[in-house]
Amino acid sequence: MNVNLNQDTICAIATANGVGAIGIIRISGNEAFKIAAKIFEGKNLEEVKTHTIHYGFIKDETEVIDEVMVSVFKAPKTFTAEDSVEISFHGSPHIAKKILEVLVKNGARLAKAGEFTMRAFMNGRIDLAQAESIADLIASENEASRKVALNQLKGGITNEISILRNDLLNFTSLIELELDFGEEDVEFADRTAMNKLLLNLRHKLSALIESFQYGNALKNGVEVAIIGKPNAGKSTLLNALLKEERAIVSEIAGTTRDTIEEVIHLKGTAFRFVDTAGLRETTDIIEKIGVTKAKEKIASAKVLLYLYDEQDSTTEEVIAFVKEFHREDLKIVLVHNKVDLTNDETPNEFDATLNLELFPDYCDELLRISAKDQTGIEAVKTVLIDYVENLKDQESNVIITNQRHFDALQKSLQSVLQVEEAVSSGIHTELLAYELRNALEQLGEISGEFTNDEVLGNIFSKFCIGK
Amino acid sequence: MNVNLNQDTICAIATANGVGAIGIIRISGNEAFKIAAKIFEGKNLEEVKTHTIHYGFIKDETEVIDEVMVSVFKAPKTFTAEDSVEISFHGSPHIAKKILEVLVKNGARLAKAGEFTMRAFMNGRIDLAQAESIADLIASENEASRKVALNQLKGGITNEISILRNDLLNFTSLIELELDFGEEDVEFADRTAMNKLLLNLRHKLSALIESFQYGNALKNGVEVAIIGKPNAGKSTLLNALLKEERAIVSEIAGTTRDTIEEVIHLKGTAFRFVDTAGLRETTDIIEKIGVTKAKEKIASAKVLLYLYDEQDSTTEEVIAFVKEFHREDLKIVLVHNKVDLTNDETPNEFDATLNLELFPDYCDELLRISAKDQTGIEAVKTVLIDYVENLKDQESNVIITNQRHFDALQKSLQSVLQVEEAVSSGIHTELLAYELRNALEQLGEISGEFTNDEVLGNIFSKFCIGK
Repeated sequence: MNVNLNQDTICAIATANGVGAIGIIRISGNEAFKIAAKIFEGKNLEEVKTHTIHYGFIKDETEVIDEVMVSVFKAPKTFTAEDSVEISFHGSPHIAKKILEVLVKNGARLAKAGEFTMRAFMNGRIDLAQAESIADLIASENEASRKVALNQLKGGITNEISILRNDLLNFTSLIELELDFGEEDVEFADRTAMNKLLLNLRHKLSALIESFQYGNALKNGVEVAIIGKPNAGKSTLLNALLKEERAIVSEIAGTTRDTIEEVIHLKGTAFRFVDTAGLRETTDIIEKIGVTKAKEKIASAKVLLYLYDEQDSTTEEVIAFVKEFHREDLKIVLVHNKVDLTNDETPNEFDATLNLELFPDYCDELLRISAKDQTGIEAVKTVLIDYVENLKDQESNVIITNQRHFDALQKSLQSVLQVEEAVSSGIHTELLAYELRNALEQLGEISGEFTNDEVLGNIFSKFCIGK
Repeated sequence: MNVNLNQDTICAIATANGVGAIGIIRISGNEAFKIAAKIFEGKNLEEVKTHTIHYGFIKDETEVIDEVMVSVFKAPKTFTAEDSVEISFHGSPHIAKKILEVLVKNGARLAKAGEFTMRAFMNGRIDLAQAESIADLIASENEASRKVALNQLKGGITNEISILRNDLLNFTSLIELELDFGEEDVEFADRTAMNKLLLNLRHKLSALIESFQYGNALKNGVEVAIIGKPNAGKSTLLNALLKEERAIVSEIAGTTRDTIEEVIHLKGTAFRFVDTAGLRETTDIIEKIGVTKAKEKIASAKVLLYLYDEQDSTTEEVIAFVKEFHREDLKIVLVHNKVDLTNDETPNEFDATLNLELFPDYCDELLRISAKDQTGIEAVKTVLIDYVENLKDQESNVIITNQRHFDALQKSLQSVLQVEEAVSSGIHTELLAYELRNALEQLGEISGEFTNDEVLGNIFSKFCIGK
């Protein structure tokens, strides 16, 4: 690793933007206590015990800026593993700005995005995957994303990777031993045992890689498109799905999110319903298949709920739609709405002719609901939940949620495949060793053992200020 | 005071809404430690020392919600004077919601707005004026409002009020002594001394009342209207005034405000330029005096900058405008812009005929500037700053910024005037005593000594959640 260990002292607001009861400014570095002591009127912060809190005033020379509580954390048992101070002030952005100005005046520097976490990583307190999980935790919007991030923070992925790396290292030792004696033409390594080890490695890597689809759904949610003619009942269905959640949300004041209308959480997973307002403008075009906007919306979706009813649709329309839009990675769910309007005594021809047998390869769900009467809504939820459950790979305990990890695992798998091929085709041991080292480095990138400045800069720049 | 002292334990998010590196949840009440201990995996929070910080996990039974730092504050040396706990978590609103849910499940109750500060007041740790100053500090957007709020928090107004109340109490004792012996027809109190005391009280009350105009300017800023024809240079002037501030703002990232374009801070005071976009639409109507919108904007302004130039305006226009809009509490400043375009060799008649002598009662400033060349901008700033400085009442050290205090002081003054009148007209002592008690109670309302539930509810409901 080739990153300069910064020895200067950094500071930043750590709480969310805007006005709050309490704001927190964080300071970390060799001079954290010295600088904080200079601007604090109260106990001498250089002499107090670690993990203690002190009442006093932040001052700019003689002028009082705010009445505060200051927390002192002595290295190495701190988030950054450096001396750290947290100032809890009256949460006005103006006061935050004043305190930061005074800190800078007294020798601190404004921290870059993610710089506190980067220091925690550089100082060996956490590995890179854990650092990333902190950003994921902060960004988590539901139970699924919170859980996978927390599991990663607790070292889940790192443990799994280190088992794989150990296997690879053992294997490499064998190969390199053979390499040393290469000229004597001795074949130390038992090639059968080798193949078994490689097969095992390949299985584990594949399982991790496959878990990404599930992990991604947990972390980022699943895009669902609801498509149907005007008055097909799209909004009514969305509201019926949202109903329970709204009630929960309103219980806890101050946690409502702007975008709640379009995200529905089922069993902790977020289902993101694509901008139906946009679709509403262009609903007529569902039949006119060429329109770009609707196509784009469907293109990014993983699940498509196609709403129709007997009064307003024909069997042909539905069939044409499904045939046009079916895609291997799109789950199409036919939702026959307004069943409350069906006259049972005169069985409707529409109903009889439209069944899943018409497109066995394209879709595998046909639900009969009444969004208005709230019947069949549970079945819709079950279909959505099952979609996510089916992504789960039973072979892997650890779930990959990070694109960077996914990429590194894929490259690692490529190298393992190369090694397998090399072993089976009897290629020279030196090439084997090269591919093995590649695979090792790719795995090491996940935990940050092999990572360059650029990659690190890229990762931490996506963090928020103050983390 | 007739407010129930709540003995239950309350909890709330104390940091600003939205995603941040750190979020804080605050708990206060008799069971704060017991409830926190139940959901915290780490040290036993019921056994640790006060003002210490502990690492661990928040759990919902067996499920880990987040990795946290918990601060413990033992009564009575806490903000609320009750046992208190602060949980510092990864700042996701979803995690905040989960932790609050777990707290509620274990016996805490979601706090109402301002309930923590209300408890601090109810438990006698701060008086009502100090409680209000906390809300003012959190809402402070500039140096002036921060300083007056901080001064109030440190007890500035309370001290002043308590001196006045002491004077009144002494006076009342004299009167009531006389009242006791009333039937013996003895006049104990020295009426000359009484009158002197009353005069002194009246002066002090008046000074405080008068300070409100200045205090209000400091706390809420001064509304300034820039008026002028299209192309008179309104935006150029606004930008010239904003220039320095923009540079300062951009130094400290994350502190920019959405409304910065319209607020200019000079010597720590906010000058709020009324929505010039709105005026731009209706600029033609400055001559057509009847238009409501422009009138409204001018009506709420304290300072009016009237921009004109020789090319585009006539002396008559300017005179007509000033005569129409002058108002006793409006400072009209004539700003002759584009002086760079004046041809010095042919002295412009416009210039010569338009001078302040034309309207000695209506406006007292005529500035010659070039907004484009940035000449004369300092003079504009000086006029604005002087406007605020002139509001300052040299007689009062303490500045009133709160409408409620202003109202109470005015009522108190009314009572004192009644007493003065009663004394001078030789009215019966019993009536004097009644008015004196009135004045005392009005003053007591400021510090919260005499306040009812409704008033308290009204004050604290304006606080943010978590404060």
